[in-house]
Amino acid sequence: MMHPYLAEFIGTCFLICLGNGVVANVLLQHSKGKEGGWIVIAFGWAMAVFVGVYSVAASSGAHLNPAVSICLAITGKFSWTLVPGYIAAQVAGAYAGASLVWLIYNRHYAATENTGAKLATFCTGPAIRSPFFNLLTETLATMVFLLAVLFITAPKTGLGSLDALPVALLVLAIGLSLGGPTGYAINPARDLGPRMAHATLPIPGKGTSDWGYAWIPVAGPVIGAILAALIFLSLQ
Amino acid sequence: MMHPYLAEFIGTCFLICLGNGVVANVLLQHSKGKEGGWIVIAFGWAMAVFVGVYSVAASSGAHLNPAVSICLAITGKFSWTLVPGYIAAQVAGAYAGASLVWLIYNRHYAATENTGAKLATFCTGPAIRSPFFNLLTETLATMVFLLAVLFITAPKTGLGSLDALPVALLVLAIGLSLGGPTGYAINPARDLGPRMAHATLPIPGKGTSDWGYAWIPVAGPVIGAILAALIFLSLQ
Amino acid sequence: MMHPYLAEFIGTCFLICLGNGVVANVLLQHSKGKEGGWIVIAFGWAMAVFVGVYSVAASSGAHLNPAVSICLAITGKFSWTLVPGYIAAQVAGAYAGASLVWLIYNRHYAATENTGAKLATFCTGPAIRSPFFNLLTETLATMVFLLAVLFITAPKTGLGSLDALPVALLVLAIGLSLGGPTGYAINPARDLGPRMAHATLPIPGKGTSDWGYAWIPVAGPVIGAILAALIFLSLQ
Amino acid sequence: MMHPYLAEFIGTCFLICLGNGVVANVLLQHSKGKEGGWIVIAFGWAMAVFVGVYSVAASSGAHLNPAVSICLAITGKFSWTLVPGYIAAQVAGAYAGASLVWLIYNRHYAATENTGAKLATFCTGPAIRSPFFNLLTETLATMVFLLAVLFITAPKTGLGSLDALPVALLVLAIGLSLGGPTGYAINPARDLGPRMAHATLPIPGKGTSDWGYAWIPVAGPVIGAILAALIFLSLQ
Repeated sequence: MMHPYLAEFIGTCFLICLGNGVVANVLLQHSKGKEGGWIVIAFGWAMAVFVGVYSVAASSGAHLNPAVSICLAITGKFSWTLVPGYIAAQVAGAYAGASLVWLIYNRHYAATENTGAKLATFCTGPAIRSPFFNLLTETLATMVFLLAVLFITAPKTGLGSLDALPVALLVLAIGLSLGGPTGYAINPARDLGPRMAHATLPIPGKGTSDWGYAWIPVAGPVIGAILAALIFLSLQ
Repeated sequence: MMHPYLAEFIGTCFLICLGNGVVANVLLQHSKGKEGGWIVIAFGWAMAVFVGVYSVAASSGAHLNPAVSICLAITGKFSWTLVPGYIAAQVAGAYAGASLVWLIYNRHYAATENTGAKLATFCTGPAIRSPFFNLLTETLATMVFLLAVLFITAPKTGLGSLDALPVALLVLAIGLSLGGPTGYAINPARDLGPRMAHATLPIPGKGTSDWGYAWIPVAGPVIGAILAALIFLSLQ
Repeated sequence: MMHPYLAEFIGTCFLICLGNGVVANVLLQHSKGKEGGWIVIAFGWAMAVFVGVYSVAASSGAHLNPAVSICLAITGKFSWTLVPGYIAAQVAGAYAGASLVWLIYNRHYAATENTGAKLATFCTGPAIRSPFFNLLTETLATMVFLLAVLFITAPKTGLGSLDALPVALLVLAIGLSLGGPTGYAINPARDLGPRMAHATLPIPGKGTSDWGYAWIPVAGPVIGAILAALIFLSLQ
Repeated sequence: MMHPYLAEFIGTCFLICLGNGVVANVLLQHSKGKEGGWIVIAFGWAMAVFVGVYSVAASSGAHLNPAVSICLAITGKFSWTLVPGYIAAQVAGAYAGASLVWLIYNRHYAATENTGAKLATFCTGPAIRSPFFNLLTETLATMVFLLAVLFITAPKTGLGSLDALPVALLVLAIGLSLGGPTGYAINPARDLGPRMAHATLPIPGKGTSDWGYAWIPVAGPVIGAILAALIFLSLQ
């Protein structure tokens, strides 16, 4: 058994390495999966969740997402005293995972001129920029995601390894169906950690990290987590 | 345990939010999954079924479809007295799910000029308009679907959570294989609820709701449910 | 419990309705899944196997394929006296399944001018016509398929419902990987029954049924079944 | 129960026949899956792993990969005395699997002029040739792969049949996400055996076997195996 914070770090590192990796594969110049399409993106993220959750469920409950930790805390299933440590580990793991992608695809970052494509392999961005509606999309997508997590996994303090496949298929559903407008962050650490990596790593010709958008994939999932928790509690 | 009607409402809301969501992702202007192809559509609907069934199976048996309720009632597995309440909850849940998609993809509806594409994110339509053959397609596709449900799930009054994956893969099969001519409603609530949403929600430049076609994805699945039930009973 | 022959008829009807259906969806004019690509074809056939096997495994062991029946008989797991009845039921079920596809896609057959595309929605054909190598491909693909069936399912007289998913994933593998040269019949009934349907159904402008090729997807799978059985026995 | 070496031979033969087969299907001239895209490649290899592992897990623990054998030996879960025999069986099985693909796609090799495409159906090559970074990619991708194997499967001396699906989904994740730069060998036998087949089989117009690159998909996975084992041990 690893310490739960270490487990969250490792699980989120797996999640983001494999999740951001699929975006790099589809978007970066000369990559063998270039233009693989949305089915590749959605399956890549879903399998990233599967690997991350399965790997550390026994040690930390595999939240891998501050919105999950907050939602479980509101519903009384997880201790608020652990939330800050979990979130810090998740953001750090996400930073590490994005850094692995940068190493693995290093020559492809150098070969890609499109700064938007390079940024998209780190963090999310809106298809149509509109703060209110982008926030609404992230809020509602996260609300659906977390409500289904609460129904499907019946979590005590987190997920078990048997929840890895159902939750991965849920994330597949969310990505295929609700990912179109904003790229489905539905996870503040998934966006914030890699955006920090983009800002700090020496990526050739990397352009802006678009910090003006960064609050939306943090605030939306948190609001969605609160809504999901309240709806779930009201149904008990 | 939720009340079964509430569970049907929530499960069908999940089903349609994720199912219509994938059509929005593939068809609406500027969406990140635009032109993702049939594999995205078919997996999106299959995973929508997985999430909807898994979430509420324990509470209501997760019919999520009037054709399922009717079929189970004919075979004596489900009480006719519950059928009207189930159907009302399913249609209302479908309306709610379609409304969520409209909120989540709001800016993309505004950016899309094609009224047919916008309508297709709510309800089904035929590839080649021909009432008799469209009805035949929906009838036979639903018959195959429900006969397989009866064989695969051995339902008592409905589905259990362990049926979520087999039924989702069955819906994947139906969509991949029999969805070409009419877009596989195979569920009256899936078509009627969202069509009502299309007719009533303030969608910019939305065009007709094509009510002339609306009876086919209702009548076809109901006839298919009757046929499946009769065949199943004759095999006992 | 249905009679095993009836179960083989129904299971193979499901298999071919959903399997041929996906080819119709991808190839026929105006179909919504048109040009969905190989991933759609391979998943469609895999899920067709899943539905067919799961539906009738408890009643007949879900062979759904003369090559399976023959292979199991050679290895001593299935009685030779049942083989003729199983094969007849499988071919008849395949004929029925292909007929359902013809009804469901009726208007699309009328709208399609390409006679080769129409034939391909019934039976297999080679990408490069070469009898010896086409036979070799079907033989080796079936040998790999059946050897893996013997290893994976440890069949007694046939498959159980828990074998439905592993065997479906095996068929997904075979289709994705070995289906390129001949369209992976790997099942004499899958090709012969639908070819008879093509020859006898009133399809507008249907062209030849290509009977000159018909022996290959029968002989190849049978030889492959014999090889797989002999290899398996030699490893015991 | 087969002898473990024989089981490794058969399992790796399945793995490479189905894995190389999918590349042949997507790349060779006139193949029905031509230009099927990365989703076909990634699912093909994942299902190849599923079939290979499921088939022989009970007999040998289904390593099918020298990096797995080495990693398990370093962590003390597998005897070093068996490692040479396992590796020899894996390389021989990979050679046999590649030869089967050459037979099955024989006419398509003859019809394909592109020597690079023909080589790619045997062994891996870099999208951007850069020995240091290609080695880094193979090392890190294998490290992530094997660390997740250690977390997910809790192997004793190898994998069990229940590990076949989780490990197949892990390989799906690796392929979708980290396969872009080098085609994810992550397995020395997967590259070396088929490269030997390419060098020795009579393939018309086959061009170079690119032996200059051959050390990278051997060295990278071995270094990755060592890193994964050390990280895993340090976390105990």
